[in-house]
Amino acid sequence: MNLELPPAAALTGDDAPPLRLAIIGVGLIGGSLALALREAGVVARIIGCSRNAEHLQRACELGVIDGWQTDPAAAVRGADLVVLSVPLGAMEACLRALAPGLGPQAVITDAGSAKATVEAAARSALPAALLPRFVPGHPIAGNERSGVEAAFASLYRRRRVILTPLAETAPAALARVRAVWEAAGAAVVGMDVAHHDAVLAATSHLPHVLAYGLVDTLSRWSERDEIFQYAAGGFRDFTRIASSDPVMWRDICVHNRAALADALDRYQADLQVLTEAVRAGDDEALHACFAHAQAVRKRFIGMLEP
Amino acid sequence: MNLELPPAAALTGDDAPPLRLAIIGVGLIGGSLALALREAGVVARIIGCSRNAEHLQRACELGVIDGWQTDPAAAVRGADLVVLSVPLGAMEACLRALAPGLGPQAVITDAGSAKATVEAAARSALPAALLPRFVPGHPIAGNERSGVEAAFASLYRRRRVILTPLAETAPAALARVRAVWEAAGAAVVGMDVAHHDAVLAATSHLPHVLAYGLVDTLSRWSERDEIFQYAAGGFRDFTRIASSDPVMWRDICVHNRAALADALDRYQADLQVLTEAVRAGDDEALHACFAHAQAVRKRFIGMLEP
Repeated sequence: MNLELPPAAALTGDDAPPLRLAIIGVGLIGGSLALALREAGVVARIIGCSRNAEHLQRACELGVIDGWQTDPAAAVRGADLVVLSVPLGAMEACLRALAPGLGPQAVITDAGSAKATVEAAARSALPAALLPRFVPGHPIAGNERSGVEAAFASLYRRRRVILTPLAETAPAALARVRAVWEAAGAAVVGMDVAHHDAVLAATSHLPHVLAYGLVDTLSRWSERDEIFQYAAGGFRDFTRIASSDPVMWRDICVHNRAALADALDRYQADLQVLTEAVRAGDDEALHACFAHAQAVRKRFIGMLEP
Repeated sequence: MNLELPPAAALTGDDAPPLRLAIIGVGLIGGSLALALREAGVVARIIGCSRNAEHLQRACELGVIDGWQTDPAAAVRGADLVVLSVPLGAMEACLRALAPGLGPQAVITDAGSAKATVEAAARSALPAALLPRFVPGHPIAGNERSGVEAAFASLYRRRRVILTPLAETAPAALARVRAVWEAAGAAVVGMDVAHHDAVLAATSHLPHVLAYGLVDTLSRWSERDEIFQYAAGGFRDFTRIASSDPVMWRDICVHNRAALADALDRYQADLQVLTEAVRAGDDEALHACFAHAQAVRKRFIGMLEP
């Protein structure tokens, strides 16, 4: 189900001093948001945080962040907005570690690809008094690359960001997070957690599992990868997502396992029917499926690049 | 199993007058070969043939062919090389129709994506005396577009072409077909029919069925395509092949159904294991699969673009 969101808060102007931002996890997602917000002129300073001081130093050199801390509580001190762009498996520990450093002005959001697990992490890691200031979010953007070197300011331009507020989330916190993503160029929508997790399982997590699975499977069919010599451009496109970070995708699959297993079950039931049509040489059934899929894809390709 | 092929014949020089070419089916595949061979300066004239005079007229206007016939026997008269680039379902009827027009110099080849079915079509449609001059072939190139408007001269450059000679195929015929594809920029390899059909089922036909199936399935999960609004770039890449011509792919699936159904069965058995790992939240199994797939893909991406 989609949810109404409050209008975006003003990020600049007399009543809105530039934001002090803390980015926990400075990779493609967090780094690109930092670059976009800097370009939009809405941030006063950006502090980065991760476990790896060398990465943070590199992010500074690239101009992505202004300073860094390896301690989350120190990183968020004085921040107006804290963005967690860490693997789903690290979310709860990060929230727990940063909570003591939060000031009364701080709003917290995240960029995790599955939201029921993030809600559970927040309820476990944050004191109840902080829940009104937590805004779970998910930018529908990214590519198969990772790390701060891959970050770029236009990653979110004309992309969608889904916010899945908690029952407790305050409208003012939502309005600030919405404003930040809009400043980065994104279109922001609200959704309930279960719908988010089912939709993303279908359109993102399922294709990743299918692509990883195909490459893994084929590599065990043939001696010495010989089979891949005869793959063409279609195969390259189809399997591009199998170049994505295995740790991140392991985390996504584990943390959205209920919705993803359901999507896999449904897909496999349909694939079984399609397999029987292939085996039987049922040209009418195959044509109906292929023609329908082609028409649908033509329709949604416009949606994908608005 | 891979097969040794004779070296390519000379296509230019004192002993080699420029080829008279007949292209049966002037779309992306046949049209691109015509453009490539014209650019290479190895053809004297190119006659196109299809059932649709308007398409042929368009191919003439685009400079892809020099003249056209809608009757296959008339189109191949005087040709040194006949290339069939028609859907697999049309192969047998085309061979039967063109056979009476073939001169004693003619070599016949095709560009069909499945080879056991083409071999059967040739044995049924051609007199035994013509079999030594038939060279089944398959260029591993193409994209999701189709029609002569999509044709371009560099389609085969640095791509692989697989030839699957019949037991009867003459070395001189093989040498001529090899030379033509090499003139178009391709690397030519020999393979037995069963191996070709299994390899292509795995690397091409299987991913097409998975992609068509995914789009078809998802479109029936959600009211009014809402689900696709939240698909990102990875989904667009993954499903690009679902924009391919449904008639062509129906034909490929039906004509390579034994090898493809086998590939689907094997893929589904592995996918079932992966699904259970997701359901159980088995992070070690998921990471092993994803990391292996990522490493394999990194290795073969070099092979894909040699």
